[in-house]
Amino acid sequence: MSDRPTAGPPPKSRRDRCVPDWLAAQARAMPGAPALIAGSVQWTFEQLDRRADRTARQLASLGVDRGTRVALLSWGGPWFVVTVHALTRLGAVTIPLNPRLADAELAWQLADAGAAVLLLDGALAPRSAQAVLNRPGVRVAVGDSAEPAGGGSAVPVLSSVRDADVSLRREIDLEDVQGVIYTSATSGRPKGVLLTYGNHWWSAIGSMLRLGHRRDDRWLAPLPLWHVGGLALVWRTVIYGIPLVLHDAFDADAVNGEIDAGNVSLVSMVSAMLERVLAARGNRPFPPSLRCVLLGGGPAPRGLLETCARSGVPVAPTYGLTETASQVATLGPDEVTGTPGAVGPPLLPTRLRIDIDGRWAAPGEMGEIVVAGPTVMRGYLGRDDETARALRDGWLRTGDLGYLDDRGYLYVLDRRDDLIITGGENVYPAEVEAALCAHPGVADAGVVGLPDPRWGQAVAAIVVQRPSISLRADDVRAFLEPRLARYKQPRYVWFVDAVPRSAGGKLLRREIRTWAEAQRPRDTGDLGGAAGAPQDSDRCV
Amino acid sequence: MSDRPTAGPPPKSRRDRCVPDWLAAQARAMPGAPALIAGSVQWTFEQLDRRADRTARQLASLGVDRGTRVALLSWGGPWFVVTVHALTRLGAVTIPLNPRLADAELAWQLADAGAAVLLLDGALAPRSAQAVLNRPGVRVAVGDSAEPAGGGSAVPVLSSVRDADVSLRREIDLEDVQGVIYTSATSGRPKGVLLTYGNHWWSAIGSMLRLGHRRDDRWLAPLPLWHVGGLALVWRTVIYGIPLVLHDAFDADAVNGEIDAGNVSLVSMVSAMLERVLAARGNRPFPPSLRCVLLGGGPAPRGLLETCARSGVPVAPTYGLTETASQVATLGPDEVTGTPGAVGPPLLPTRLRIDIDGRWAAPGEMGEIVVAGPTVMRGYLGRDDETARALRDGWLRTGDLGYLDDRGYLYVLDRRDDLIITGGENVYPAEVEAALCAHPGVADAGVVGLPDPRWGQAVAAIVVQRPSISLRADDVRAFLEPRLARYKQPRYVWFVDAVPRSAGGKLLRREIRTWAEAQRPRDTGDLGGAAGAPQDSDRCV
Repeated sequence: MSDRPTAGPPPKSRRDRCVPDWLAAQARAMPGAPALIAGSVQWTFEQLDRRADRTARQLASLGVDRGTRVALLSWGGPWFVVTVHALTRLGAVTIPLNPRLADAELAWQLADAGAAVLLLDGALAPRSAQAVLNRPGVRVAVGDSAEPAGGGSAVPVLSSVRDADVSLRREIDLEDVQGVIYTSATSGRPKGVLLTYGNHWWSAIGSMLRLGHRRDDRWLAPLPLWHVGGLALVWRTVIYGIPLVLHDAFDADAVNGEIDAGNVSLVSMVSAMLERVLAARGNRPFPPSLRCVLLGGGPAPRGLLETCARSGVPVAPTYGLTETASQVATLGPDEVTGTPGAVGPPLLPTRLRIDIDGRWAAPGEMGEIVVAGPTVMRGYLGRDDETARALRDGWLRTGDLGYLDDRGYLYVLDRRDDLIITGGENVYPAEVEAALCAHPGVADAGVVGLPDPRWGQAVAAIVVQRPSISLRADDVRAFLEPRLARYKQPRYVWFVDAVPRSAGGKLLRREIRTWAEAQRPRDTGDLGGAAGAPQDSDRCV
Repeated sequence: MSDRPTAGPPPKSRRDRCVPDWLAAQARAMPGAPALIAGSVQWTFEQLDRRADRTARQLASLGVDRGTRVALLSWGGPWFVVTVHALTRLGAVTIPLNPRLADAELAWQLADAGAAVLLLDGALAPRSAQAVLNRPGVRVAVGDSAEPAGGGSAVPVLSSVRDADVSLRREIDLEDVQGVIYTSATSGRPKGVLLTYGNHWWSAIGSMLRLGHRRDDRWLAPLPLWHVGGLALVWRTVIYGIPLVLHDAFDADAVNGEIDAGNVSLVSMVSAMLERVLAARGNRPFPPSLRCVLLGGGPAPRGLLETCARSGVPVAPTYGLTETASQVATLGPDEVTGTPGAVGPPLLPTRLRIDIDGRWAAPGEMGEIVVAGPTVMRGYLGRDDETARALRDGWLRTGDLGYLDDRGYLYVLDRRDDLIITGGENVYPAEVEAALCAHPGVADAGVVGLPDPRWGQAVAAIVVQRPSISLRADDVRAFLEPRLARYKQPRYVWFVDAVPRSAGGKLLRREIRTWAEAQRPRDTGDLGGAAGAPQDSDRCV
């Protein structure tokens, strides 16, 4: 498109980008409607709004102001939600940290983010966190450990902090940075992703257009709120004006309880969670009040989607990134049966193409997924070079490999970094994993490339077998023989008890690679198959 | 808010504002889903998309290009919809004209808009429109009069125009001007309102957040498409991915037929239409498949809203402007009973305040409605002075008077231009009209101010009485006596057969004023009441 101007005066700029504070607007329009439900906590929009105001005044007395970078260490829950809204009213930048990280990792992220304030959820077990708590230049405040339930008046969420008499922001500039979320990079240090309010807004709207919007919806988040999938729900539930339902930690029975009681119409999960939910409920059908299970956190196993289709689970597989404030593409819950493996078309505001060395791929051709549009991040905090590499003319190079079918539905296969090149041929680990998992005796599998002097890389697989079945590497090979080209077949196969996965269910290929390389010296070098004595729980074949 | 920057690189500007062409995206994601239903025409998104492409190529051969101003003279219907989408693919500016205008008015608007091309719907009765058709510098093309129904392939909508081989735009820049809509000004010439794609997008999203969004919705538009309320539906139905259902002209029985057959879940109407629909259906209840009647076009008569509440009609009264791409505030259909007369809170992205001489009004205080946000127009075409008067720092002065209640619900009373100032006191005509209409013998009323040498202005009313009742001015006065302050009571009361209203149901106060001033010479000058012999159908008292 050219930049030639059309009729009329120039754009009005900043004023157009300002919208009312979402929580304040809902608190005014529907003060008594439920906003947050978490155990005994049941807050209306008015109650949540007052707490956000009170907390903002407390934070102001700590010196938090426009642009202050504030790290948040919390397991999630009401304290997290209130604090995020409070920081918005001060124009501060929120940096949610993952409390599962080691102290050294947290200290590194605090320094990298340039955080001036660290807010600790009182509900966290006290950490012996000298590295975290005693950093020069970082003020620390600790929240109350107990959240009083109900109640109409605002109560402090920070211990022993006074209120400052400041004027709070009642508008949101969509181009302001809301927060920094650290991604778990496949190599090197994590990167802080700068997300604006506009990124969150457009993500919420794009999702709504795909999944629909009912004024009586209730959205269950049994996910960590410090990841983008959880933080996105904090924003979209206030934008939609519907309650966010939180669980302390993931519990399949608790999720089933909410669903069966008709308490929730939408729930966000990753595959591993959904599998546990399905296992826990047996053949009990889902009630019609559950209208959508948004399934993220990496490609869903085909078997899981088939189970959902058979059992009538209204599942919506999605592909998303921290860099796009969550969803990029999502399949409607009514479309899953027809297109196994697809994550649907891109959300309406998102442009998506498959790039092969600068050329747009044809349908069916594999390449790198690149996306553009208003959900794409501002950049990486303090990493201009990496920002420039990732964002070119507004297009985000995701580093993920996939293809589009004739209808423009996206299929995601792998991280580009995980691509195995052996003898000049491309092997997509996900394809090999899918073939392995199609064996009735295989419960899970992970595939990586290992350095190989002759072929460049060699395909290596770790396999978890189902308890009742005893498999040998030759059985697996025989099964793959008619299903995969010769060069795609694993040269190494190890049986293991579990495939390393993140809390979000993502395969941790780097760990597999490290482990596999450590096993290989025991390899006989036989091209027909790896060998070695079983070690502990690993039976190497 | 200050403009101090927050963390990170600067905004990415234009790329962020670009989204995929909405129709093209839906045609790809849901090719077989219904997009347009109008009599025998039933087009899927794929069919509508192909027709838009074909028409765009024809328009390109007429020289239509980025920024070309193209006037559209059409009764609406599929031809209008296809042409609007086709113009988007060329980056042209669409100027829908009202075919009810006289030739001289059309010629004036064509010149004012600087239209280079005029497209005439072939379905229009041939106009003896020398003034319109033969303008220097304006190319004219005539569309086919008959729209072929169904069919998968694209057919031309312009007679005898070849296709040009041009590349069509597949992206929409939200800051591009989509069109110019002329407003019916209360005084002076109409003004062309510049609306961007972003204005339409945000209007669609704000409405969706208030009314909900179901993927199986169908929206009936028995409204002219050249007004903003109709044009907004052309856009929002493709943004939502739902069918737009069109009627050739408003027909209460046809509307009831669609509703009763369960063919539509949403319908946009003005009060006069809804009254006719209700009258035509008697006591027949609405089926639950109709989930919302969006009621616009000026303040709804209280009696109508009461009837709706009694009969369970899911009505959503709305306040909107051409300058805001339709809705500003809308009451949810579940909220009408509790707040008679309110049009609800502003849509989520819209900021609204009541201004009294530069001060923000308190709840309950009457003042001018001013709004800001991403639905606010770019400005008036070619009228920098009027744009500067209307838009100050992004805030649009609507010229409408209203107030907010404690909950932030908006009540709209009058145009500021219609305010009557008598003896230094403000009189809101709508308040006097409401008091008049509360009389069981009064069917309708209109109130204006007339010049008065002593008081500045004098309150004058025209009243329509119910057929079975014979009223005198003294009866009316006695009724108002305990209900209105002395200075608000009409000095002149005339009985008439009908109050002049626009097709949209809006009171035409200018006409009332002109008529009333012509009556006044017969006034005896008696302060207690106007007098004069009944004339024709008007009984002056």
